[in-house]
Amino acid sequence: MIHITLPDGSVKSFDKGTTPMDVAKSISEGLARNVISAKFNETVVEASTPLTEDGSLTLFTWQNDEGKKAFWHSSAHVLAQAIQELYPDAKLTIGPAIDNGFYYDVDFGAVSISDNDFKTIETKMLEIARGKHEFTMRDASKAEALDLYKDNAYKTELIENLEDGTITFCDHSTFTDLCRGGHIPNTGIIKAIKILSVAGAYWRGDENNTQLTRVYGITFPKQKELTEYLHLLEEAKKRDHRKLGKELELFTFSQKVGAGLPLWLPKGAALRERLEDFLKKAQKKAGYEMVITPHIAQKELYVTSGHYAKYGEDSFQPIKTPKEGEEFLLKPMNCPHHCEIYNHAQWSYKDLPKRYAEFGTVYRYEQSGELHGLTRVRGFTQDDAHIFCTPDQLDKEFKEVIDLVLYVFGSLGFENFTAQVSLRDPKTPEKYIGSLENWEKAEQAIISAAKDKGLNYVIETGEAAFYGPKLDFMVKDALGRQWQLGTIQVDYNLPERFELSYKGSDNEMHRPVMIHRAPFGSMERFIAILLEHTGGNFPLWLMPNQVSVLTLSEKYEKYGKKVLNSLENYEIRALLDNRNETIGKKIREAEMSKTPYMIIIGENEEQEGKISVRQHGGEDLGTISVEEFSKIVTTEISKTLKEF
Amino acid sequence: MIHITLPDGSVKSFDKGTTPMDVAKSISEGLARNVISAKFNETVVEASTPLTEDGSLTLFTWQNDEGKKAFWHSSAHVLAQAIQELYPDAKLTIGPAIDNGFYYDVDFGAVSISDNDFKTIETKMLEIARGKHEFTMRDASKAEALDLYKDNAYKTELIENLEDGTITFCDHSTFTDLCRGGHIPNTGIIKAIKILSVAGAYWRGDENNTQLTRVYGITFPKQKELTEYLHLLEEAKKRDHRKLGKELELFTFSQKVGAGLPLWLPKGAALRERLEDFLKKAQKKAGYEMVITPHIAQKELYVTSGHYAKYGEDSFQPIKTPKEGEEFLLKPMNCPHHCEIYNHAQWSYKDLPKRYAEFGTVYRYEQSGELHGLTRVRGFTQDDAHIFCTPDQLDKEFKEVIDLVLYVFGSLGFENFTAQVSLRDPKTPEKYIGSLENWEKAEQAIISAAKDKGLNYVIETGEAAFYGPKLDFMVKDALGRQWQLGTIQVDYNLPERFELSYKGSDNEMHRPVMIHRAPFGSMERFIAILLEHTGGNFPLWLMPNQVSVLTLSEKYEKYGKKVLNSLENYEIRALLDNRNETIGKKIREAEMSKTPYMIIIGENEEQEGKISVRQHGGEDLGTISVEEFSKIVTTEISKTLKEF
Repeated sequence: MIHITLPDGSVKSFDKGTTPMDVAKSISEGLARNVISAKFNETVVEASTPLTEDGSLTLFTWQNDEGKKAFWHSSAHVLAQAIQELYPDAKLTIGPAIDNGFYYDVDFGAVSISDNDFKTIETKMLEIARGKHEFTMRDASKAEALDLYKDNAYKTELIENLEDGTITFCDHSTFTDLCRGGHIPNTGIIKAIKILSVAGAYWRGDENNTQLTRVYGITFPKQKELTEYLHLLEEAKKRDHRKLGKELELFTFSQKVGAGLPLWLPKGAALRERLEDFLKKAQKKAGYEMVITPHIAQKELYVTSGHYAKYGEDSFQPIKTPKEGEEFLLKPMNCPHHCEIYNHAQWSYKDLPKRYAEFGTVYRYEQSGELHGLTRVRGFTQDDAHIFCTPDQLDKEFKEVIDLVLYVFGSLGFENFTAQVSLRDPKTPEKYIGSLENWEKAEQAIISAAKDKGLNYVIETGEAAFYGPKLDFMVKDALGRQWQLGTIQVDYNLPERFELSYKGSDNEMHRPVMIHRAPFGSMERFIAILLEHTGGNFPLWLMPNQVSVLTLSEKYEKYGKKVLNSLENYEIRALLDNRNETIGKKIREAEMSKTPYMIIIGENEEQEGKISVRQHGGEDLGTISVEEFSKIVTTEISKTLKEF
Repeated sequence: MIHITLPDGSVKSFDKGTTPMDVAKSISEGLARNVISAKFNETVVEASTPLTEDGSLTLFTWQNDEGKKAFWHSSAHVLAQAIQELYPDAKLTIGPAIDNGFYYDVDFGAVSISDNDFKTIETKMLEIARGKHEFTMRDASKAEALDLYKDNAYKTELIENLEDGTITFCDHSTFTDLCRGGHIPNTGIIKAIKILSVAGAYWRGDENNTQLTRVYGITFPKQKELTEYLHLLEEAKKRDHRKLGKELELFTFSQKVGAGLPLWLPKGAALRERLEDFLKKAQKKAGYEMVITPHIAQKELYVTSGHYAKYGEDSFQPIKTPKEGEEFLLKPMNCPHHCEIYNHAQWSYKDLPKRYAEFGTVYRYEQSGELHGLTRVRGFTQDDAHIFCTPDQLDKEFKEVIDLVLYVFGSLGFENFTAQVSLRDPKTPEKYIGSLENWEKAEQAIISAAKDKGLNYVIETGEAAFYGPKLDFMVKDALGRQWQLGTIQVDYNLPERFELSYKGSDNEMHRPVMIHRAPFGSMERFIAILLEHTGGNFPLWLMPNQVSVLTLSEKYEKYGKKVLNSLENYEIRALLDNRNETIGKKIREAEMSKTPYMIIIGENEEQEGKISVRQHGGEDLGTISVEEFSKIVTTEISKTLKEF
């Protein structure tokens, strides 16, 4: 008999050789139907692996990340078998599960694979899956393995490089693959299959090696799930911020200026300005003061801050002056500059907290291959601020920062988010800077703030930076994708390095604590996420152009201007389209640019002194007065944008 | 007889050997009394120089720059004589006239000169001046000259290096100096003398040479003028923007960030923001669109623009990436970026003009010794814009830019300005890029715009840049000092280099013309000038804090907040000073920070629901209602700030 501990802490006795599937059956038939993988004493096992000793067992279903991983790992085996059967000369290499599906890298020799072949591969895979073949792991000798792959130099290389000498095979149907395990019970539960794409990939990621074909696929236990996933993919493609950024004329890139350095076009700059003004207004109420600092500084500044030692070599290299031989660096972060601003005067505890905010553009080197639209760039503007306060003020300051972040998320329609509190590892106090007392104070402050503000948070012990604990917000967008947005960090390090001080009520000099915070993170990344979250249909208050006034013909220009003027008096931002174009074309273009409201004016409207209103997407709001329309606008805005 | 042509074109006959003074006397006794120098056929001569041939004569008085130059040059001789008499061992070197006065570089040997010696030197100079000694020029042989200066290595070196071999001396009183001429008739007209300062200066400006003592002085024909000048100097010192910037907590510098890289403190950043918002609002009405571009670009961009070839070596050196070996440059100007923005799409003549504006921060290398406060920096933000238009639109665009510049000057209290129109030299057409037709169009456009707008302008032929003609504004500040502010330049070069185009009404592709313009020039320099012009008493509309509400004691906090709230409703920007300090201290501090209005509240004010108002400088406006006060504010603002 062996004793199995389950996640709820209960311990059950089973015969030696019992499998995780047997355990599942002993709990319920329903669970057994859904179990696809398991973890025994921290090791991934198959549902069919015989358990031979006491230990802890966790059962995984499709709902768990581990379950999905086993599902997709197993699907990669099925893909490999299908390819081997369809292309007998193809040489298989490796094929792991990834976040969304799996891939297999294959040397197809002279054959080239395209979209046209996907259907054939899918059909073959489905045929294999329906065979309900079980996955069976077995040990193999090196000689046996090398023999199996005598015609495959890639697998041979893998076998030769195996460090521990243990070689395992996985068999299913007529197919065998070199494998470490972690499969679903049988191929039969793979019900829906899609080959997504092919791409080039070098063997072992080294561009000096042969280029292989990477075949990407995804599978699901239900057809409905695949359909939903493909719809999501389609939707994500439509909402790709690079595509929308172009369509809405928000930003562009220029080869001559350089990759990863966005140029903001008028509409994008207007959008940024609205976002910045929105945050500035809230920050002013919260007692922040704006500052402006240069985009370069002497290398010395970053030597003091420690950034140079840590990132110097992998960053944009120093800028030399032609005569004095001075060395400057592009500013990678604003904090050292704000420390110098703090240091320009002597402070008393009565002056604190100082809250310095800046829309500070920073430059950080990224390899050109890693750049991506506005989410991975080489220059970006942080909505940065640094709060310098006494340790006693930390609690209140942290809560107020959370209030501000929640206000930002609420106003921009991000309703689905969680928080992660990163604390120090109390077992390794030597890894952290700052007194134990201050750390405890700070950690308590963060936890109590998260609790007080009703955040849905998890605590991650040991995840704090060496300089202080932090709280990160993880936001889910409309497509269910998760993004890290908004971070609040406590810092004991920079105040030390910059020798910041204030005179306490005891007349002694003390070190202030610093809080770094950025609700948006960066304007570039935030706008990218907002674009993908809203598909370009931003909240009405944020739209630089809320209304387009479209004339039925150029005759109505005068009335159009009058309407524009009234809208302005109601503080509604509008443009007049009085071109000599058809109303159909004007509406189409306004729709394309996601203008929330279109006002159409012609003979009737002018005579009645009214406007015909059409909402983005087509809804007709009828012919009303500008005043009535202004109330519709005000009501809609007040739904998302409250006073801070 | 010789024929002398006077500036009014008239020609008069005189005996050969007639002096400019004789000519002055023949015109009027008054003129003769004031003539201090002259120019004959483009050469500076003395009033006593005999004229021996036909030619054009211009007579100079103290009112002319040339007259002042002769006056101060002659004063330098007097200074030299005084020093020689007071310090017989001192070795004289050179002593020119400068913009404001003159100096003499002297090797005093072991003697050191300080403020304490100024009085003695002035007295000695005055004694010499009163002798009414005439200045007499004479030729000398090299041997004679070397003999005179046998104990003076500096003069000996000068004599040895004289290229044309002609050596002239100037005698006055018992003193002789090596000299090229250009003196006043006699020392007697020097009535007021001030030694201003001493400084170190290397012989011939080379730091490897002996360090000399530079003695600065200034002289005037009237004591009253000296008094006025010294008052102006005193006033300028008080208004020094570096001093005011510190006192008003507008900006600071940090050694670690680097010289010439200002850090804007909260009050300075707020001031900048108000200035930028003011211009943004006017620009929006004028049809500009804001854009945002990065602060670096690939070297390639500036190779295309031509800036790299021209400035590359003497600029901040390229920034390399650690892996790809790419080279970026700090952005020295925004125009190449805006050209790339223009180039992101295809334009038709119907889309033009495009007016792209940006508060673009640029970085330009200056030697550290040349940096000065905010007027000479290494990083600054231009209120930049580029207009891309058809040649036909140039006229209208240019006029509209002038309107904008005049609006900016008017709103900020710069009422005293002139304009300079720089045109090409028609004799050297090969020096300029762009067709003759377009140049003529552009020059006509600028001249007609300057005329139409009633500008007080001068035309400078041959002063245009190779890429286009321009108009510069020269502004006089409250102390009468002249600053170049606001430039409007036409550019045919960058459109060519960036291959900019638009489709004309003829369906052919054409090059647009570009206008560069910046009414402020740079935010840094403009704020420096504005500080010195206003002494920190900015126009009311611009003051980030217009009112300080001072409570007589902390008891009145609630009423203070109520007042603050009402002020906010009238859109008046105010702060509450409710500290536990005396009202005297609160008023002093509000005065120091140049707050335009102080509102004092206590028992009486609270009971009556009124406020006691005190203006900056001390005037008591009595106890009035917030509404009455708001009218005072509105009236004052409307005096300087109109709608654009």
